[in-house]
Amino acid sequence: MPENVNRQWVLKSRPDGMPKESDLELIETPIPETRHGELLVKNLWMSIDPYMRGRLRDGPSYAEPVPIGGVLQGESVGRVVESKLEGFKSGDIVRGHIGWQEYGILDVTGAHTVDTSLGPISTSVGVLGMPGLTAYFGLLEVNRPQPGDTIVVSAASGAVGAIVGQIAKIMSCRVVGIAGSDEKVSYIVDELGFDAGINYKTQDVASAIEAACPNGVDGYFDNVGGEITEAVMPYFNLYARMAICGRISEYNEDTPSMGPRVMRFVHAKQAVVEGFLVFRWEDRYEEGRARLAQWVKNGQIKYLEDVVEGFENAPKAFIGQLGGANFGKLLIKVSDE
Amino acid sequence: MPENVNRQWVLKSRPDGMPKESDLELIETPIPETRHGELLVKNLWMSIDPYMRGRLRDGPSYAEPVPIGGVLQGESVGRVVESKLEGFKSGDIVRGHIGWQEYGILDVTGAHTVDTSLGPISTSVGVLGMPGLTAYFGLLEVNRPQPGDTIVVSAASGAVGAIVGQIAKIMSCRVVGIAGSDEKVSYIVDELGFDAGINYKTQDVASAIEAACPNGVDGYFDNVGGEITEAVMPYFNLYARMAICGRISEYNEDTPSMGPRVMRFVHAKQAVVEGFLVFRWEDRYEEGRARLAQWVKNGQIKYLEDVVEGFENAPKAFIGQLGGANFGKLLIKVSDE
Repeated sequence: MPENVNRQWVLKSRPDGMPKESDLELIETPIPETRHGELLVKNLWMSIDPYMRGRLRDGPSYAEPVPIGGVLQGESVGRVVESKLEGFKSGDIVRGHIGWQEYGILDVTGAHTVDTSLGPISTSVGVLGMPGLTAYFGLLEVNRPQPGDTIVVSAASGAVGAIVGQIAKIMSCRVVGIAGSDEKVSYIVDELGFDAGINYKTQDVASAIEAACPNGVDGYFDNVGGEITEAVMPYFNLYARMAICGRISEYNEDTPSMGPRVMRFVHAKQAVVEGFLVFRWEDRYEEGRARLAQWVKNGQIKYLEDVVEGFENAPKAFIGQLGGANFGKLLIKVSDE
Repeated sequence: MPENVNRQWVLKSRPDGMPKESDLELIETPIPETRHGELLVKNLWMSIDPYMRGRLRDGPSYAEPVPIGGVLQGESVGRVVESKLEGFKSGDIVRGHIGWQEYGILDVTGAHTVDTSLGPISTSVGVLGMPGLTAYFGLLEVNRPQPGDTIVVSAASGAVGAIVGQIAKIMSCRVVGIAGSDEKVSYIVDELGFDAGINYKTQDVASAIEAACPNGVDGYFDNVGGEITEAVMPYFNLYARMAICGRISEYNEDTPSMGPRVMRFVHAKQAVVEGFLVFRWEDRYEEGRARLAQWVKNGQIKYLEDVVEGFENAPKAFIGQLGGANFGKLLIKVSDE
């Protein structure tokens, strides 16, 4: 057993707008005892995702909010330190919602064995995990691209967006990505093979979409919401399909901000706008993971990890992500062991 | 042949906001000559529909705009005065886009024989015509109601909304209608059998929806857009389906007005918002018309016609409709003959 100290990031106060580091607190508690049917897991790689902003807000959502004083939630991949659960043994690599802490307890419903033959274990919370599966099912089941379609994706260099664009290329689509720096735009075009990229911080998104999508927009995979989305929708083609995966530009708003009414574009083009959460396809995760792993293995999908060393840096990394600072899949490297 | 005068309503100037009667002009021209392959049709009942506002605007839409000096477009049912088209004879009752004029020419692509055994001929542009088919396909194919679902419909006493609500009742749904007067609300509840009605002019729509939809909203059939729609969307259930049929509150806007951003409700509830135009199901019109006629015959669907006598009153009726003044399917009775 390790030294009996478990560091945790807990919620000190509910953020008003963009979270501040002072909204969170780093505390030390004893490592929890492992009961029958449970695993004690040491956190190795912690995934940081924009959706976690929603868990810090009180009020109805698809998941319970983190209570004041509660450990922040999130998925990690870790190593079993002690097993009192049949089918698992000390040393196994598992994935699960350990939360923002160095050690956590998982049970049979929450512990998932990681197939370490598929790739480095960090990919089990990245390209072969929730972000990759979100891209896979959201694009294929909601956007439903056809060969030759023009697909636009926002937050295009992010953990989800970069995979969306590469799958759309595999599906023989024209792919246009929107990102927040010239470096990110170069990456998606030069490294990932997108047909065009738009820097929303320096370009007028509407005219850039018009130029990059001469045949209009057939599918829009939306990670950001707000103004960028409102700039894309006027270019919808007949029967365009928009998948709402995230709305990072709106996550810090308690009440909806104002924007131009966009339903006219949905109406005239008989478009479909559909929100989704990846859990809908939970019974098909193995299919998605296998196809993603194959594409990674044969080089059709590349992935980029944005690794922040040290558990203590998680809040800063999370706040940076909400402001668009990360570049690739954001991970906290909690421990080497 | 009749006296050689054809009165027409033509577009004099493009309306800025709500159309004014002075934007249109009543002119007299000779009755057009009937060429080979054509029918000369006398206009009997002219349908007035909100979508026609869009045809008065220049710029891209799903249909060509009416040019300045051009006859206003619209569907009518009329009587063949002269036939040079095989399969039609003088005296036949036909439906088609005659436009806002007393006589018009139809050809084989535009003339549709009316089955007068199904009901009064005016119903061929009402409950058994485009408005009825719009309700039928929009509700069944876009909202896709299941027994027990709660369906909300706006402009609920209108030509489309009243049929939507009654079909939803046939489908064993709870039906809540939104309309613009206590008289209209009484009509949909007491005459048509809706479960509840909301007067958006005197009630707070959000709290009224909350009260009338204790189990949330599974389907929303939207004819109005704007604030009313923004008040309904927060009550969406998981996988709610919203059909955008019309946006009458926005038709007088050249550029989009501002409203609260609503995609959060689509995202969190994994809802679907889909725009549609009835033409999508043109190959199934006969199916729709047959079912609607059966429901009308057995009393499961009632319809109300708002008849304005006299061709000269068309602009006033149209402007009134855009302001919510009509009550039921708005028709101009052009001629008795």
